[in-house]
Formats: sequence, structure tokens, C-alpha cells
Amino acid sequence: MRLPEWLAWRAVATPERAALIWRERTWTFAELALEADRLACQLAGLGVRAGDRVAACLSNRPELVVLVHAVSRLGAVLVPLNVRLTPQELLTVLADADPHVVLVESATRGAVASWTGTVVDVEELAGLPEAAVELRRDVEVDAVHTLIYTSGTTDRPKGVLLTYGNHWWSAVGSQLNLGVLPDDRWLLCLPLFHVGGLSILFRSVLGGFAVELHERFDAAMANEAIERGVTLASLVGTMLWRMLEERGERRYPAHLRAVLLGGGPAPRPLLERCAAVGLPVLQTYGLTETASQLATLAPEDALRKLGSAGKPLYPNALRIVRPDGSLAEPGEPGEIEVRGPVVTPGYWRRPDLTARAFSNGWLRTGDIGYLDEEGYLYVLDRRDDLIVTGGENVFPAEVEAVLLGHPAVAEAVVVGIPDVEWGQRVVAAVVLRRGMSATAHELVAWCRTRLAGYKVPRTIRFVEELPRTASGKLQRWLVRQEWERARYSCTGNSGSRDEA
Amino acid sequence: MRLPEWLAWRAVATPERAALIWRERTWTFAELALEADRLACQLAGLGVRAGDRVAACLSNRPELVVLVHAVSRLGAVLVPLNVRLTPQELLTVLADADPHVVLVESATRGAVASWTGTVVDVEELAGLPEAAVELRRDVEVDAVHTLIYTSGTTDRPKGVLLTYGNHWWSAVGSQLNLGVLPDDRWLLCLPLFHVGGLSILFRSVLGGFAVELHERFDAAMANEAIERGVTLASLVGTMLWRMLEERGERRYPAHLRAVLLGGGPAPRPLLERCAAVGLPVLQTYGLTETASQLATLAPEDALRKLGSAGKPLYPNALRIVRPDGSLAEPGEPGEIEVRGPVVTPGYWRRPDLTARAFSNGWLRTGDIGYLDEEGYLYVLDRRDDLIVTGGENVFPAEVEAVLLGHPAVAEAVVVGIPDVEWGQRVVAAVVLRRGMSATAHELVAWCRTRLAGYKVPRTIRFVEELPRTASGKLQRWLVRQEWERARYSCTGNSGSRDEA
Repeated sequence: MRLPEWLAWRAVATPERAALIWRERTWTFAELALEADRLACQLAGLGVRAGDRVAACLSNRPELVVLVHAVSRLGAVLVPLNVRLTPQELLTVLADADPHVVLVESATRGAVASWTGTVVDVEELAGLPEAAVELRRDVEVDAVHTLIYTSGTTDRPKGVLLTYGNHWWSAVGSQLNLGVLPDDRWLLCLPLFHVGGLSILFRSVLGGFAVELHERFDAAMANEAIERGVTLASLVGTMLWRMLEERGERRYPAHLRAVLLGGGPAPRPLLERCAAVGLPVLQTYGLTETASQLATLAPEDALRKLGSAGKPLYPNALRIVRPDGSLAEPGEPGEIEVRGPVVTPGYWRRPDLTARAFSNGWLRTGDIGYLDEEGYLYVLDRRDDLIVTGGENVFPAEVEAVLLGHPAVAEAVVVGIPDVEWGQRVVAAVVLRRGMSATAHELVAWCRTRLAGYKVPRTIRFVEELPRTASGKLQRWLVRQEWERARYSCTGNSGSRDEA
Repeated sequence: MRLPEWLAWRAVATPERAALIWRERTWTFAELALEADRLACQLAGLGVRAGDRVAACLSNRPELVVLVHAVSRLGAVLVPLNVRLTPQELLTVLADADPHVVLVESATRGAVASWTGTVVDVEELAGLPEAAVELRRDVEVDAVHTLIYTSGTTDRPKGVLLTYGNHWWSAVGSQLNLGVLPDDRWLLCLPLFHVGGLSILFRSVLGGFAVELHERFDAAMANEAIERGVTLASLVGTMLWRMLEERGERRYPAHLRAVLLGGGPAPRPLLERCAAVGLPVLQTYGLTETASQLATLAPEDALRKLGSAGKPLYPNALRIVRPDGSLAEPGEPGEIEVRGPVVTPGYWRRPDLTARAFSNGWLRTGDIGYLDEEGYLYVLDRRDDLIVTGGENVFPAEVEAVLLGHPAVAEAVVVGIPDVEWGQRVVAAVVLRRGMSATAHELVAWCRTRLAGYKVPRTIRFVEELPRTASGKLQRWLVRQEWERARYSCTGNSGSRDEA
């Protein structure tokens, strides 16, 4: 099935409406479409043809937004690269993606210096000639638009293929859940090289509302943007914490209709604090493989189902599966499997991975969660992060939520480290709030009254910050690794404690 | 492609949200779905199977809403009948539709008395047994949901087939244009047996907002509903006039976000008066054959493009074609042709009509309109109503708009009647505003200063009311017919004038 290309269509339907806000400048949909056409002709001049990959090692900037739409004009495939990857990691990804051209900016040019293919600096785009090619005005829904490499695992990078249909259904499902108005303005401060940021662009051109793009997340700027008129935002937990810290107790304005919260299970104390200052947070659950949100809480359930990621977005489905493949009962944790038109057709040049990822049309996410009696999803953890100690399963998120409930704790991460006696033992790294103090003894006592004994951290260390991906996702494997190397620095305001 | 059935899915996603408001009662989506299940089992008990037609000769009432969704459970086809048809007209339609059962109410039972098939009064539904059948929870997008007979022509009734896909795309396209919020409330006072009313129900279950259903249009009740919290409404021109008359000069509340105006070209004075009292009217263009709106003005163009029906809704297309099949220039009137997933697959058991209606995938609407330089559609008239006088084309809507601009004129219709000298001559029937008077001389003088001579009505008659269909659409052919029979009554406050 073919559909009109979204920006081209939107530029005809509502040409004068604001599409993109960046610093002091605003692009209308007509202007954005014009720039996408021009860039497409320049890419064609560089020899880019249908099916070719165009990689971008760019931070959030208007040129990247334009590129997202320009590739559609040529039937080319966008490969957004994580700008925080090391040169070696970038080379590995580029070798796998095999792009026709890599677009860089001054800050990332060095990182791909050893790449032997064509590299173009977006700041030099103006000088590039435009080829006279026929630009596409419609798209095949099953064609691939994006090739996104997943982050954060020690495994070799996996390229996730996302089709126009994946993005289309993702945008429509999101809008049917959340509701969208022509004069909405969506804050985009997640990196565009992750699907959580990228997907906002597709929602914008389909729904015809504006995106306010920030180069990077900055708590004060995000709060200011909301004050100035942002009605919707996509954030991860860390960002929310920092915004709350920056703003204090002051309530958020009523025009802020919803904040989509992604990036993993959110601790309950964070959600409660948001509720207290009128931040209408809707927890979401999604993967690169599902083109962003797969499930999201409905607005009216935001408080009643605090901590849940809601129900699947139309027309997708999810289920909880036991290790033996049978379906879990309500309340029983198991692996989350998903199905529907937002799900990737598979991994780039990895039929082996693709075959392993799917089971009878269901994608095995590797994530652990359960459905309550009413069918609401609660995400517990990444499967890889499940701690098994003395035969008991411990879900780090549960322990972290308890730690975060302590008034002095700003951030916490719980991991399992090898233990000869118990297989794994539970340990925690904690960031304290500025100006507050707590001892490891106090925190363990706090946990003891709230958790079964085997879940209580055996060791608590105080650190300055936690390792996170560019999109704010906690890198548990890094915490484990660093723990094992005993490289954590201890803050001065409290001691460390080790019961083991 | 299969999709989850919309109400079944919505009843899981947001079960407690208001779905239907009728008088003092509110149904949640869960309650509505439960009633649809029950009715489906009762219909199965009457022997209704997949593909069978279920006809409904019902005015707007909750049972009809439930029926719209119940047929989906069985894969049956809904045939909503116009309750204003004569018994003979109903028999003709029923013979063509060949339904397994006809649902009636006390007011319509008599009209189908001579129909020999199964007839069930919805007021007796409670006593019907429910068969234990497996109900469908998903739908095939290409399957037929509705068979709607078009009104208003002297031709034999045509049954328009509408698929789930037609309705789905119609609802999505409407929401991408208008924006929809979970707490919206849509006023439904158009008859459900026309697609303009019916389509609101599909938008509601997809978008998850409430419908406030009125048994019939009543200006005071419609105004009151808006005052009480209605945010969206679908109306035709006559309804708007009456609401404005009833309400006076008072502005409408800001929570009323948009009024979709269908039922043919709207006169500019009406739109201007709406703008003056803060009624945010968006003119639409649609047909039964396009599952309601095909084009609609975007909110920001409401005033700038007053009188236009906007641009096609995503992802549909329209074009203006000359009699020789070539494309018209901007500003040049021609036949409107439409294409896209909202367009009917064809007419029930009429391959001949279907073949004639389509030309290379484009549906010939028979309507006349033009696109301006910016691509906005202006609908001039039904092709059948084009007046050709002395070789000049006269579009009745244009003349009517001028007449309606006169302060004393409430309604006006312009038709062509046979004339030996000119082929056709232009005549007008006018309804005066209560308490106001005007002579035919005055109105002709008014037109003379505003229209080319050949467009000025040769005869103006004053009538009490104009013949309209149940959905408020003017029946021009009836006006012509009655004119020729000279059966118009003249009001006492002015004379008639005939220059011919």
C-alpha cells in the first residue's frame, strides 16, 4: 500500500503552520518541506539512490530534522548514529550499516575520521550542488525508512529496521491515546538518534503540530519551554528529577497536557512527586523495535495506575509469557512479548537474530513485566538485569523504588554481582540529593522495613553520578562492570557499608 | 489486513470513559460494548450470519448506536433506512437490500407493514433470546460494514457499500485535520441513517471521546448542549441558521472547538454571521460514497478561506476535471473527482453503476467545484443542478448566496426551469425571515447590483419552507417539480414578480 509522504502532504494541507521551533527561529511545514526537497537533491548529487543508507552522526539540530524527511524523497534509508559512541564503536556500526554517505558536524567529524567512505559536514551543505532528480511524493508502507542501532548492551550492535508503516502506526496509535490538537507544541529534548526522539517528528508531520527542538536536555530550558507554551513533552526519569529539582515546588502550568515518560520503569516516588506539582506524567513502554511507544497509560489512569505503562496502543497487542512459553496469570511476572504493525520487520543483515527474536509473530522483548487484573502493564526490568540470589528472583527496579523513596536519595541503581555463596548478591549505588546526607546503615534499615530480606542490598555505595546512555537509560552492565573493578568514588558525606 | 474491532478494543483501552450521552443517561465504552455483544447474540438468535444485511428503520436512539457496533461482532452488514421515506420507497429499498431482519420502532412499524420478511421492534428486544455464538473481536478492513441508500434523486435508489477501511480512514483523516482530545464531546443531531451522523460514531470509538446523541435537531437543545460542554458538532446550514436565530447575538463559549458544516455549499452570509458570534465553522465536502468528509477546511483557514471546503483529508485526493477529461485550471469550475481509501468499493448489486462511477480509480462525484490558486476546494453545486441559460452556465449556489445576503431573506433556492427561448431560465424560491418583508422587485434589484444579468432570477416566489431531506439537504429537483406544477403558496407580505 502506498501513502502520500507525510511532510509533502502536510506542506500542502497546512503550509503556514509552525512545524519546527529551534532557538529563535520557526520553520513552517512549507519551509521544512522545501529544505527537505533541497537536501534530497543534494544527496542525489552525492550519488544517493533508493535503498542506499545515509548515516548521520549529528546532535539535535534542524539539519537532522530536514534529513529525516529528505531520505523519504529518495527512498533512501536514514541511519542515525549515537554521537556519544567512541570512534571504534562508530566504525563497527558504519561497517555494518555500509552507508553511501555519512553526515557529520564539527563536533563529530573527528570521531569518524578513520572511516574511508564519503563524509560531509552539514555546515558545508550550502555549497553542495543539487541534482535534478524526481522526488518521491508517496511512500510504500512496507519500505524501510530508518536503520537504528540499539544501545547499551555488550553485544555487537544490532541494526533495527523500521518501515514507514511502523512509524505511521506508531504516530496514529499515540494520537488516538493522547489526543492531539493543531496548536500543540511538543518538546523534543531526547536525542533524535534514538527512536523516542525521532518518533516525535513523525507525530508532528502527521498531526500537524509544532516540535520545539532542544540541542540537548537542560532542566532550566525545559522548564522554561513549558512555561512558554509547550503542551506535550517526551522525557526520561532522570530528566524529570532534574526539572523538579530546578523548579522546586511550583506547580506546572495547565496548558502542559501530558509528559510521556520513557526509558524504563519509573520509580513511584518520582511519579508521586510529579503528581504533586501538576506534571501530568504518562508512563510509556517501548523499544527501538516497536518504533517507540508500544504501550502508554491513558490520561485518566495517570494517577489511578501510577507506575503502570498502561495498555497497548491501537492496534498492537502484548502478552506476558512464562519461560515454558505458556501465558502468565495476572500479577505474575514474565517476559513481555509484543505484536502489531509498529513492530520491526527485523534486524539489518541478521536473519539469525531476526529468527530468534520472533516466536509465531510475537517479538520477544527480553523485558520483564506483568499485567494486573485489569490488564495494565507494569514493567519490572530488563531480563538481562534480573538478579537471582539464593534461587530467589530480585527485580532491581523494585529495590530501587524503595531506595528512591528515602528523602535523601536522588538516584539509585541496584545490580547483582557474582557471589560464591548465593550466585549473585544484591548491591546498590546511590546518588544523594544535594545538601542531604544518609549513611548506608540508614538506607539498609529503610529497605529492611519495606522489602523481603533477600531483596535488601548487601552493599550500598555512594557515587557522584550513574552511567547512562545519551537517552538517559541506565547502563546497568556498566554499573556492574565498574562495581567489579571497585572504581566507585565515595562521597564525603557518608560512609560505605558492606554486610557481606 | 485485520484490525481489532474498534469498540471492543476501546472498551478494553478506556472502559470507564463516557461513550454515549442520551438525555439523562451516559454509557461508558464498556457498557456500550456489553450491549453490542448482547444485541449481536440476539441477532444471531434470529439467524443473522456473516454477510447478512440487518436493516434498521430507526430514528436516532441508543439502540441504533448499539446496532452499529453489534453487526461488526457477526460480520453482518448494517442497512440504515431513512425513516422519512414513504412505505413504497421503503419497500423498494428493502427489496434491493434483501435484509435478513428489519429493526423498527413504534413510529416506523407501520411504514414497513407490507414487508413480508422478519420485522423486530427494538422496544421488544429485551425479550429476545441470545444465541451462544462466537463474537468477532477483529475486522477485515476490506469487509463491508454498511450499505447506505442515497437520498434525494428521482433515480432508483443506489446502495453505497462502505467498508471498515472506508470508515477507519475517514475517522483517522478527520482527527488528523481537526485534532481530538479524550475529553471531547461531539454533538450528534444529524440522522444516524446518513453517513454524516453515522461517521461520528466511528470517530468516537477510535478517538475515545463521547457522543451526545439527540433524537432530532432542535435549535434550542443544540445551543443548550453546546453551553453545557459540547466541544465539537456536525451540522448542516439550515441547522446553523436556526441556532443563530434562537440564540441571538450572544457569543458561543470558547470550549466549542469546531463545528463541521456539511450538506452542500454554505452561503457566505451564514458563515460570516457564524464568525461574528464565535461559532468556529469548518466547511466540509463529502458524499455517502466517501464515508463522510472527503475534504475539510483546516481550523486556521476557517476565516481566511470562508466558503471553501478546504483540502482533502489524509491520505485522499481530489481533482477538478473538464467535460473532455482534462484537468481544470485553478479557478475554473469542473466536475469534482475523488480518490483514496475513504472511497466506496461500489454500489450494491449494481456493477453497471459502479463501472460508470469510476474512471481510472477516480470516483466521479457529479458535483461541480473549483480549486483556487492555493488548492482550496470551493463547491459550487450538484452537477444535476447546473443551470444553462442562453449558453451561459449559472451555478445556483452563487445566486443563492447573493439572495441570502439580503437582510430579509432566511432561505433561498435557485433552480432552472425549461424555457423555450433560453433553454432554461433562472428562478428562485425564497423564505423570508419572521417579521420581515421584501418584494420580489427589491430582491431582483439587490441581485442586479451583485450579479451578471443572466444570473439574476427571472421569477422570485415567496414560500413558507423549502423541501429538504432528513439530513437537511435541499431537494432541488423537488423545487423544480413543484415549480412546474405551480403549487407554491405565496406568503401574504409580498407579491410575486415575473419578468419572463
